[in-house]
Amino acid sequence: MIDQTRLPNEVVWIECRTTEEVAEAIEALRVRGAPAIGVAAGYALALAALNSSARDRDGWRSDLDRAAARLRQTRPTAVSLFRALDHVLQAADAADSVADGQRRVLAASEALAHQDRRVNEQIGLHGAALIPARAHILTHCNTGALATVEHGTALGIIRTAHRQGKQIHVWVDETRPALQGARLTAWELLAAGIPHTIIVDGLAAFLMRRGEIDLVIVGADRIAANGDVANKVGTYSLAVLARAHGLPFYVAAPLSTVDPQIERGVDIPLEERSPDEVRTIRGIPVAPAASPALNLAFDVTPAELVTAIVTEAGIARAPYNRSLAELAAAAVHEESVSRP
Amino acid sequence: MIDQTRLPNEVVWIECRTTEEVAEAIEALRVRGAPAIGVAAGYALALAALNSSARDRDGWRSDLDRAAARLRQTRPTAVSLFRALDHVLQAADAADSVADGQRRVLAASEALAHQDRRVNEQIGLHGAALIPARAHILTHCNTGALATVEHGTALGIIRTAHRQGKQIHVWVDETRPALQGARLTAWELLAAGIPHTIIVDGLAAFLMRRGEIDLVIVGADRIAANGDVANKVGTYSLAVLARAHGLPFYVAAPLSTVDPQIERGVDIPLEERSPDEVRTIRGIPVAPAASPALNLAFDVTPAELVTAIVTEAGIARAPYNRSLAELAAAAVHEESVSRP
Repeated sequence: MIDQTRLPNEVVWIECRTTEEVAEAIEALRVRGAPAIGVAAGYALALAALNSSARDRDGWRSDLDRAAARLRQTRPTAVSLFRALDHVLQAADAADSVADGQRRVLAASEALAHQDRRVNEQIGLHGAALIPARAHILTHCNTGALATVEHGTALGIIRTAHRQGKQIHVWVDETRPALQGARLTAWELLAAGIPHTIIVDGLAAFLMRRGEIDLVIVGADRIAANGDVANKVGTYSLAVLARAHGLPFYVAAPLSTVDPQIERGVDIPLEERSPDEVRTIRGIPVAPAASPALNLAFDVTPAELVTAIVTEAGIARAPYNRSLAELAAAAVHEESVSRP
Repeated sequence: MIDQTRLPNEVVWIECRTTEEVAEAIEALRVRGAPAIGVAAGYALALAALNSSARDRDGWRSDLDRAAARLRQTRPTAVSLFRALDHVLQAADAADSVADGQRRVLAASEALAHQDRRVNEQIGLHGAALIPARAHILTHCNTGALATVEHGTALGIIRTAHRQGKQIHVWVDETRPALQGARLTAWELLAAGIPHTIIVDGLAAFLMRRGEIDLVIVGADRIAANGDVANKVGTYSLAVLARAHGLPFYVAAPLSTVDPQIERGVDIPLEERSPDEVRTIRGIPVAPAASPALNLAFDVTPAELVTAIVTEAGIARAPYNRSLAELAAAAVHEESVSRP
């Protein structure tokens, strides 16, 4: 995988050979973005399956459980990580030997990666229909190819709309503290030749006031059954500001981001990271070391501020309890029909 | 003066011996904050007055004009800089010789510094009356002793309220791109022993939603006659968010910040600075060098979002056209009465 902490200054590929190496890469944000950490966690379980020294199926299966437990400790908010682990463990359960299990686990983790590619293309197509022929789009954090396997979610919609010949200009929120917008989204847009301008997070509102933003699109780390959206810190701010300025606020995410176990956003666990990520930037102090800092990595946007949620199965609108459940049911039906 | 670009890591004092050195210090943000750059500009004219090699009054006066023209080019938004220059030049006009002029110019620039001290104490007292006995206060940028001669404007109110025994906790917006909140406000609060927590700018809205902010206080670089407020980028965002969450949004500034020549905020010149201040942090690249960035240093908050403006002569409320003019008239009257 690309070590995303080194971007945009250096493109460094790292090779993870153990579950622990992947777990540390997830914790350190070397790989980040809800879909990408889901797929990385799946492959990390495959590494555990292949590296296990257990000779019998039960010992091997226990090794997988330990690996999954380690991976569950990495980051609490994005549900894709937990879903990916469940998916791969379920595949392991069907194994009748270690060798059979290894094949099944590797196939299950590769299926996650393939599915993510397909899902993002579909999100791109559904979402692009929402984008006018000429649009100034504000986005936050990174939801592109780096955050997924390919293409991206919110940024995937922007890619698709641009590919369709729409005249797109992207306002890129830098997204403090980890600067995923300035470092990663700008890097992807530059590579894709999509016009864009980086801004500090505090400028978005004034650009809205000046009429320089037509719509906002962001991704999601977990969506409650009622449509409340947990996403990168700063997202809620943009949703309130978009509403105050009469602009559409779209969320783009795979249906697997919806967590039916969580009824309302207030129940989504929000990761709090080290205050040093706020007090220092790339190792350089930018605040007194003795000053406290609160580094909440995510926030929750209530469903009533979300204009629509773009998924691979189509576009959900309020009331989300019903629309998200319907899309999920339709997607399961389509998948079962399309299977051989 | 303290070189504010080196804070909080190092406290480095620099000595400016020429007008040009002060002008460069203002441009490079070594000294910043509307009141502080006003006073610095006044002293920079005094340096021109003392350094002039002209032998006759008219030549000397022309040197002052050239120095003032240079200083007017430094930063366009804060009106205090222009007012300070006008004030000192007016004192020079009354001179009947070079030596007399030098005395008058030095006295006028020192008067600006003395006045700023007195004004900030008064703003602190008026504003502290607005602060509840226990309050979580959000502030933006730096409006403290570093931004003034002493005490501060918005931060001066917080200092005064804390001195009065009120239980204050300050949420410090880091204030990208120049990080005046994280670097300077946190440093001042730490030194003053006032409890505080640094946050990224994008987190403020979610803390409001969670009920963890009681009120917002900011400073101002220029206030239009109608009460529209130009201040550090990110201020307008906070004003919209405060309104959306039902929180008071206060502005603290000397009456000299009000520019009666400017009727509405849209006419205030807003400084645009180098995109490299967004693309790099302390010299380290945090974005692709080829990606455009927009670095608007200020924004404008419309008067209808401002709960009150705290000045040295009292608290102005809407309609600001009238209340600000009344306070200005009262202040002029009081000043003329209190003179010997």
